[in-house]
Amino acid sequence: MTGWVAVAGLGPGDAALITPEVTAALADATDVVGYIPYVARVAPRPGLRLHASDNRVEIDRARHALALAAAGGRVVVVSSGDPGVFAMASALFEALEGVPAPHDLDIRILPGITAMLAAAARAGAPLGHDFCAINLSDNLKPWVLIETRLRAAVRADFAMAFYNPRSASRPEGFARVLDLLRADCGPDRLITFARAVTTPEERIITLPLSEARPDMADMRTVVLVGNSATRRVGRWVYTPRSA
Amino acid sequence: MTGWVAVAGLGPGDAALITPEVTAALADATDVVGYIPYVARVAPRPGLRLHASDNRVEIDRARHALALAAAGGRVVVVSSGDPGVFAMASALFEALEGVPAPHDLDIRILPGITAMLAAAARAGAPLGHDFCAINLSDNLKPWVLIETRLRAAVRADFAMAFYNPRSASRPEGFARVLDLLRADCGPDRLITFARAVTTPEERIITLPLSEARPDMADMRTVVLVGNSATRRVGRWVYTPRSA
Repeated sequence: MTGWVAVAGLGPGDAALITPEVTAALADATDVVGYIPYVARVAPRPGLRLHASDNRVEIDRARHALALAAAGGRVVVVSSGDPGVFAMASALFEALEGVPAPHDLDIRILPGITAMLAAAARAGAPLGHDFCAINLSDNLKPWVLIETRLRAAVRADFAMAFYNPRSASRPEGFARVLDLLRADCGPDRLITFARAVTTPEERIITLPLSEARPDMADMRTVVLVGNSATRRVGRWVYTPRSA
Repeated sequence: MTGWVAVAGLGPGDAALITPEVTAALADATDVVGYIPYVARVAPRPGLRLHASDNRVEIDRARHALALAAAGGRVVVVSSGDPGVFAMASALFEALEGVPAPHDLDIRILPGITAMLAAAARAGAPLGHDFCAINLSDNLKPWVLIETRLRAAVRADFAMAFYNPRSASRPEGFARVLDLLRADCGPDRLITFARAVTTPEERIITLPLSEARPDMADMRTVVLVGNSATRRVGRWVYTPRSA
């Protein structure tokens, strides 16, 4: 019996955004491994073992998945969104560095709809031209690197998507981000707060930076900032293809 | 009869990467509008009109879709990948600026798996930390803006994804991009050429910048460049979560 690991993206929440590829992998799996709320999105069935773990133990979780597969398990590691965007794929490869013969393992990364693209779709097309994606959490990197990237993105006039903008344990960082953006982009730049996209709790609001407040974001929010040409049409916001 | 427009992402090629949401919209449509090779990916059926048009007529195509919907059509505008990433969503909103009452229209953007995320998944997780996406085509923007964004991305140590890296009509731009990257990132930085991802013609190669040649890219290729911490493990390439 040959085991495998698939790191799969469940998309932002709506089951209609889960790819058939991911659905097929889940149907064939013996084990599902992941952060508690993501494992909760997988329907239980006989013969499927669910291994839910807490946040911030990504490397342990990845090692567990590799061990289950080495023992013959067909293992799906679930991420929300896309597994390659601020999610479990990198953690799995990090864990793989400790494995003697990585070439022998059957590993697949199954892409998903990442939060920024689902949020952009609901709001219009704010990422319709060159853009960047920045993880605002400083759990794993120094804050100064986040500021360096923000300033570079503003100078280059990228549209921007921010993941993990604000948590209870570090509420002040996002306030600094908004101050920096207001100083460098001006008060009229459009910003979109997209919370719990494609779920029943979805809430999406677009407003000028002058009206943005730090408490509009939490860990379930992805934040999109337009570039200097981003504008509204009707109830939508979009970035022109030429900007 | 009330018409609508859905701008839908067909993903990179493999039917298993088309979301159920997009499949449902196509099943309910009266009209499909899009660039010739994308419309060719939609199965014909009685009652479904296919309107295929050539490249570089995006605004005309968007106006056509809006007119069909105003006449009661249920219209799906098809893009490859995700419609909000260098695709038809922005063009639709541009066309909407000429419409007297945009609020009255039923418009939805249906996200898809964009090429860079499918390519990253095949290669490992090269976009596993902060990254940017740049369209290298200078059809709609000046070349100097592309270079400004490239230099900013290098200085900020973003991983990068390049769309439309090279066409027959402008073969020299991508050579300049490689020269700039080699000068600023050094010869060992990892670059991935992912052509026709998830199709039978898929070809993916990762190599150091010193070995990259302009003719490794064409219009069916998405190019991924790691950041300074991107590295290989086994046959994969990934960017650590902390870099």
